[in-house]
Amino acid sequence: MRTKVAIIGAGPAGLLLGQLLHTYGVDNVVLERQTPEYVLGRIRAGLLEEGTVALLDEAGAGSRAHHEGLVHHGVELAFGGARHRIDMHAATGKTMMIYGQTEVTLDLMNARKAAGLTTIYEAADVKPHDFDTDLPRVTYVKDGITHEIACDFIAGCDGYHGVSRASVSASAIQTFERVYPFGWLGILSETPPVSHELIYNNHARGFALCTMRSTHRSRYYVQCPLDDHIDQWPDDRFWDELKRRLDQKAVDELVTGPSIEKSIAPLRSFVAEPMRFGRMFLAGDASHIVPPTGAKGLNLAASDVHYLSHAFREYYDEKSSAGIDAYSSTALTRVWKAVRFSWWMTSMLHKFPDQGEFGARIQLAELDYLVSSKAASTSLSENYVGLPL
Amino acid sequence: MRTKVAIIGAGPAGLLLGQLLHTYGVDNVVLERQTPEYVLGRIRAGLLEEGTVALLDEAGAGSRAHHEGLVHHGVELAFGGARHRIDMHAATGKTMMIYGQTEVTLDLMNARKAAGLTTIYEAADVKPHDFDTDLPRVTYVKDGITHEIACDFIAGCDGYHGVSRASVSASAIQTFERVYPFGWLGILSETPPVSHELIYNNHARGFALCTMRSTHRSRYYVQCPLDDHIDQWPDDRFWDELKRRLDQKAVDELVTGPSIEKSIAPLRSFVAEPMRFGRMFLAGDASHIVPPTGAKGLNLAASDVHYLSHAFREYYDEKSSAGIDAYSSTALTRVWKAVRFSWWMTSMLHKFPDQGEFGARIQLAELDYLVSSKAASTSLSENYVGLPL
Repeated sequence: MRTKVAIIGAGPAGLLLGQLLHTYGVDNVVLERQTPEYVLGRIRAGLLEEGTVALLDEAGAGSRAHHEGLVHHGVELAFGGARHRIDMHAATGKTMMIYGQTEVTLDLMNARKAAGLTTIYEAADVKPHDFDTDLPRVTYVKDGITHEIACDFIAGCDGYHGVSRASVSASAIQTFERVYPFGWLGILSETPPVSHELIYNNHARGFALCTMRSTHRSRYYVQCPLDDHIDQWPDDRFWDELKRRLDQKAVDELVTGPSIEKSIAPLRSFVAEPMRFGRMFLAGDASHIVPPTGAKGLNLAASDVHYLSHAFREYYDEKSSAGIDAYSSTALTRVWKAVRFSWWMTSMLHKFPDQGEFGARIQLAELDYLVSSKAASTSLSENYVGLPL
Repeated sequence: MRTKVAIIGAGPAGLLLGQLLHTYGVDNVVLERQTPEYVLGRIRAGLLEEGTVALLDEAGAGSRAHHEGLVHHGVELAFGGARHRIDMHAATGKTMMIYGQTEVTLDLMNARKAAGLTTIYEAADVKPHDFDTDLPRVTYVKDGITHEIACDFIAGCDGYHGVSRASVSASAIQTFERVYPFGWLGILSETPPVSHELIYNNHARGFALCTMRSTHRSRYYVQCPLDDHIDQWPDDRFWDELKRRLDQKAVDELVTGPSIEKSIAPLRSFVAEPMRFGRMFLAGDASHIVPPTGAKGLNLAASDVHYLSHAFREYYDEKSSAGIDAYSSTALTRVWKAVRFSWWMTSMLHKFPDQGEFGARIQLAELDYLVSSKAASTSLSENYVGLPL
């Protein structure tokens, strides 16, 4: 098989790249180790920047999001027993949309199917080869038979644990990492959200987040020790702990119910530089991970894909390699800003084992300043809604 | 002796309070352990917020500052080999003034002398008494004789190591502290400043600051290990190290010369709460210390004194204790914002032993964001020029 761009990974990054390239007339094949059902079973992010929604539209996969997504104009910060709203739309002119990553992935899968594009699921032992030459290729095993795809470029959209970055010599990569000393215990429940917008809670017992997937499906998180196991967190204990971290109004209005998903996720900041290795390009989690506090993971993957799809378009339409040559540095400039923002939101909102009383009060002073200063709340807002591409 | 307000400490906080109270018709006595020459010999801060200059004016001690002070409209941030100017006047409408703390103190001393007010220098063994009663008093020893001042109120303006806070039962005070793992090695030299505005340098070798006291007197700092001794830093070594941390333009334009003062100062954040204990009130360093990175120490003392002088005025003129009752919480709200800002500036600009490659890149990402975002640079500016009283 031969294609222009072989895309490794059928998560939202790989599928969005495939769809955008398709609209630009650049043919591509997507390879995925798992089944579509497995991919869709992963519960991930739920908040899309306006720019991410625009990319879905450009990819021809945005119509259901516009119909079912919930448009948000701000968030609330809760600390010291009170809630303070940040009107991000007023500050930036932009909105956010609540629409689950699972739904984004499904819409992109459907668009890809409708366009008749090739996606190979359950491709075992996927391997990128010869990306340091002009003749890169990808091999995989399907039904016991080894296949090969010859291509012009390889796009590694296969996440943090994926084979793409792992195929590069360690000496060619510089990595930056911070592992946070806590996790997020999250549950999904078929209950109406406690508020129509997100509530970020800084509390002496630890961080809590009230978010949602729809008007009838809520997503709540509480910061927990990294070594906790979900068996230690029956639903009742979760709801009790959540209530202890919320303001009274939220406690009064919270509707609880059985969890339909429950998990503990570690928090990590990670960047691998560069994002290009010859004819292989990384995008999304394959290159960088952010803690979920700033809701940036999926959106950052989308902005990588924006830069990369434009770079490939320029290569094929204008015979120019300027875009692909600039990709790594262009994408990394925005990546680091989002990594910085996610680190800052995480640092300000969580209880750290070593923060002491001074650190706790600095967080409160920062939150107090944030909600009282137009400049500071605008700075928070412009990052949260997404810095310009 | 009897007075309305007994002020402990003849630094800028105590002298400014004395002068303001005098203009409000509230008589006061200032007690100081040292000689005036010793007080004037301490080289400290050099940058005044517009609000601090206004307080000097109100105290009748601002005329020389307006004549000799250098008005600054912005600062420069240097990182990654380039300098970026933040136009703080454009962002906030306010300016800063370069005018040494020593000069402020001298002007206040002279104004106090001209007004014929009582200042007792070389007062040994100063002690506040009975501030939990309606009959507070201060005792001191002068020329071997113990004296007593009966008063309505005691103002503790005697710094971090002073007797005022030390006289309060430890159980009545909550303290918050962070000690930074480095010091500032500073020199004063009779050389023209390398730039007409301050340059804050984030460098892989550590922080450096180019500042000044006048058009012909420069003040430079380099971050150094806490346990370094000035004997290890002959002038040549200082200038060499400074040059290694500056951008090329600054290196080319730097005029070096013999140091006329050289010292290593530790960096500390400290807040003691509350700021009122019965009829004793703390102001300035007696209650809080900030690292010098944000140029907030003297200015924060001035804003405390603003609140406290108004509270006393209200008490005497309007027979209302609302101001003195609100003093601690009003002052602390602003204190914590300045403590937060100073901590943040310090965190962003210095090399920390445990920051790792991730932390170093986060600093650069934050600086890059700061100089590229109007909201973020406005937020920096509004703090730097001084939040509203």
